[in-house]
Amino acid sequence: MLRRTEVEHARRRAAEMLQRVGLSLTPEERVRIEVADFGLGELERTGLQLLTYVNTDRYCAKELVLFPDQTCPEHRHPPVGADPGKMETFRCRWGTVRLYVEGPPTPPSTARPPAGSERYYTVFHELVLSPGEQYTIPPNTLHWFQGGAEGAVVSEFSSTSRDEFDVFTDPRIARTPLVE
Amino acid sequence: MLRRTEVEHARRRAAEMLQRVGLSLTPEERVRIEVADFGLGELERTGLQLLTYVNTDRYCAKELVLFPDQTCPEHRHPPVGADPGKMETFRCRWGTVRLYVEGPPTPPSTARPPAGSERYYTVFHELVLSPGEQYTIPPNTLHWFQGGAEGAVVSEFSSTSRDEFDVFTDPRIARTPLVE
Repeated sequence: MLRRTEVEHARRRAAEMLQRVGLSLTPEERVRIEVADFGLGELERTGLQLLTYVNTDRYCAKELVLFPDQTCPEHRHPPVGADPGKMETFRCRWGTVRLYVEGPPTPPSTARPPAGSERYYTVFHELVLSPGEQYTIPPNTLHWFQGGAEGAVVSEFSSTSRDEFDVFTDPRIARTPLVE
Repeated sequence: MLRRTEVEHARRRAAEMLQRVGLSLTPEERVRIEVADFGLGELERTGLQLLTYVNTDRYCAKELVLFPDQTCPEHRHPPVGADPGKMETFRCRWGTVRLYVEGPPTPPSTARPPAGSERYYTVFHELVLSPGEQYTIPPNTLHWFQGGAEGAVVSEFSSTSRDEFDVFTDPRIARTPLVE
């Protein structure tokens, strides 16, 4: 469990990265940046900062902030009722993000699953996105991603987001949004 | 009909505004920025520059660039088959954008419909968006928008975009994407 001060620090750091990139936030948005450690309690290694701009029953848009080498762990977005599962487009805005999806492993890969959690990372088809580059992830397919040496700011455009249904490869993970 | 040189000039100007704001484009994207004069041949007054990042059967994301006081004319996105009509969220990234939607006219309004076309502007409920501010427009409702004194860069998050079905108040308008 993250301490409140850790959450606040991560939130401030993410807000500063967004600001530096020129992505303006309202004061209200600045304090509702979501800090997710996926229940592992090692935010710097396994975690993600998110700001959801809009999430309707038709579409969703977010900014994702990754600190240097921070990893969003492997997961998929399964079908939910009539929805075939969330489809999402990642567009790198700043820094670099290493994205891993289903497909032939990419040699030589720069993939570095978080130490101690290697067994829960199973897809290694690598895409390295620099600013202006994007990639669309089909529904219900495994993926994970990692910030580069300086971290990354990534815009996510997608169908409706229903995070509570996400299926993680690591059984220890509980995708409960952290609220202070 | 716009001359090719006018289209190229507007495209370059839009690419420079996006770049200045820190929104990186690939070289391929830079040359496919859409320049729309809506068939009126007065781009500086009535027009819009767009870059579509992604448009799937589930969601769409674009950047919109408005030059100073440039107006995207009044229109709505009607139902198409099972689709209730495009729903869209405008998020101002840079400059200011004046957005007009259905509802009680806002006094005192700064609305300035393009000279000579005033009769084709009928909704005057005003929202002035500055960087970090956003507004979601329901499907099938009239709206138009206008760049502020310096123009604007606006991110659009939406359901699927089917521009060819858009219904404009001005009967002279043909929403045909301009291709060189």
